[in-house]
Amino acid sequence: MAAVPNIIMLWTIIGAIAATLTSLSFIPQIARSLRTKSVKDVSPVTLYQLSSGVSLWIIYGVYRRDPIIIWANALSLITLVMLIYLYFKYGLPAGRQGD
Amino acid sequence: MAAVPNIIMLWTIIGAIAATLTSLSFIPQIARSLRTKSVKDVSPVTLYQLSSGVSLWIIYGVYRRDPIIIWANALSLITLVMLIYLYFKYGLPAGRQGD
Repeated sequence: MAAVPNIIMLWTIIGAIAATLTSLSFIPQIARSLRTKSVKDVSPVTLYQLSSGVSLWIIYGVYRRDPIIIWANALSLITLVMLIYLYFKYGLPAGRQGD
Repeated sequence: MAAVPNIIMLWTIIGAIAATLTSLSFIPQIARSLRTKSVKDVSPVTLYQLSSGVSLWIIYGVYRRDPIIIWANALSLITLVMLIYLYFKYGLPAGRQGD
């Protein structure tokens, strides 16, 4: 009788691990940028595009009533904003190319 | 009578734009890495973690029967594998730190 809820819980756990891995994926990039104080090889277009994309994913997640989609992308957005801040902090003074 | 399908189509379009933006978000990073032939500021841990995460998102998308989640993450995985290839091509010979 408990078989169906257990399977649903398994999928929820897989979704939660997926969400955790992708949401926190820019933490190592933030750590590296903080350590090296260099971001010249990081593409700002990638950061802007990802930020726009995950913002729309949050809206889509609200429509799908899927809390994993909402929270995963909200967390991604926070780390992306932090990385964009670091990009301007370390990248702009030296007049890096913004592509 | 057609109002409900139109609203569903609007959400599908928002999801499709979100999926397109995030799936193709590493194309500018690939273009920059190809041009500069330098990846020393790119965190490989971020690339590995994102690749693992989007792989699990694909599995989760199959469970949710959500083609947008499946295809968006499959496209992300392809671009991430390309970027990991470039990381090893441009990053390893100079003995970069792999964090």
